Amino acid sequence: MKSFDLSLYLVTDRSLSLGRTLEYIVTEAAKGGVTMVQLREKDCSTLEFYQQAMLLKECLRPYNIPLIINDRLDIALACDAEGLHIGQSDMPYAIARKLLGKDKIIGLSVECLQDAIDANELDVDYIGISPVFGTPTKTDTAPALGLNGIREIVKISRHPAVGIGGINRTNAANIILAGADGISVVSAITSATDPKEAALQLRSIINQTIKKTINQ
Amino acid sequence: MKSFDLSLYLVTDRSLSLGRTLEYIVTEAAKGGVTMVQLREKDCSTLEFYQQAMLLKECLRPYNIPLIINDRLDIALACDAEGLHIGQSDMPYAIARKLLGKDKIIGLSVECLQDAIDANELDVDYIGISPVFGTPTKTDTAPALGLNGIREIVKISRHPAVGIGGINRTNAANIILAGADGISVVSAITSATDPKEAALQLRSIINQTIKKTINQ
Repeated sequence: MKSFDLSLYLVTDRSLSLGRTLEYIVTEAAKGGVTMVQLREKDCSTLEFYQQAMLLKECLRPYNIPLIINDRLDIALACDAEGLHIGQSDMPYAIARKLLGKDKIIGLSVECLQDAIDANELDVDYIGISPVFGTPTKTDTAPALGLNGIREIVKISRHPAVGIGGINRTNAANIILAGADGISVVSAITSATDPKEAALQLRSIINQTIKKTINQ
Repeated sequence: MKSFDLSLYLVTDRSLSLGRTLEYIVTEAAKGGVTMVQLREKDCSTLEFYQQAMLLKECLRPYNIPLIINDRLDIALACDAEGLHIGQSDMPYAIARKLLGKDKIIGLSVECLQDAIDANELDVDYIGISPVFGTPTKTDTAPALGLNGIREIVKISRHPAVGIGGINRTNAANIILAGADGISVVSAITSATDPKEAALQLRSIINQTIKKTINQ
């Protein structure tokens, strides 16, 4: 049985790490309470990507936090990652599932309501609602969906959902209140002076907000 | 049993196709006698790469010509290509072999004598000696090895070898005479006004040269 917790999902970005290694960022984030980590690399060789994935796997093992690979099924297979995250321009879901097997986590980005409707036909493990807000970390994204976008998508989707894009401690609570199961962050942790402290603060906000929604 | 013919090996490059589709180039090249085709894509999405690979597989099926995917093991698996070509910065050979299985063709680029010595420890199916000459189609390559480089590498290598880099009909014979089992070309076919005719001419040069080396 696959079991994972979407509540605080870190997506890496080497260019936003202020010169620190991803191993450092990810280890600190793990200490601070992130529940999933996605390795995203767009400009390195396959060998570097593989080596980076193996390093992060080692960092995350003591914390039992799943490592998810962005886009690259070959890397996910090579490092036996816990899962793969695919976007609308990546490998078709059916093929990814066939090659990865049913025990791995597969997440899919949805960029509009129709994507989420289409995703209901697929046995993806979660959807990433993207982008929630405008974000400096990706320049090739669809228009921002906003909190209303999350509400609409969560209402029709049969999958657990995480919001991504421009999320930080000032708006994290609203993402959960809008119905998402978690938040996905890049720069809010990766570019923080103290990534562990940044994760702890987000963790605290999420825990309090989840408690509120349960008590409502 | 894997059986393949390295003698005239086309490597694609969409940017050198003069606006024509790769399906057109590859089909014409197949009619002209190419024996292997490698799909190389460096700037497209995984979805586009996969779709392009599926199209080329269809084009090549009637000719029984193997489709080899450059670098991307995920694409090779997804389209059930006949093989994978890896460079020194791609997936480590041992992992690629484990994931692809023993029945698929795996080629490895060697850029110097030491790479070829190291490759003797691996059960790769062929080596690509790269680059033989300076070439406009790749800008991130190692120094040109020249015909002497081919001779030295072929002498110590236990694998079939194909030369790549700056090869065209003016120098194709010399590559075979230097000991390679075949030539790999990009622009000599891809950028030709008539890709079928260009392949036929190269085919004829190779056949005549092989005949000469046998009669020696």
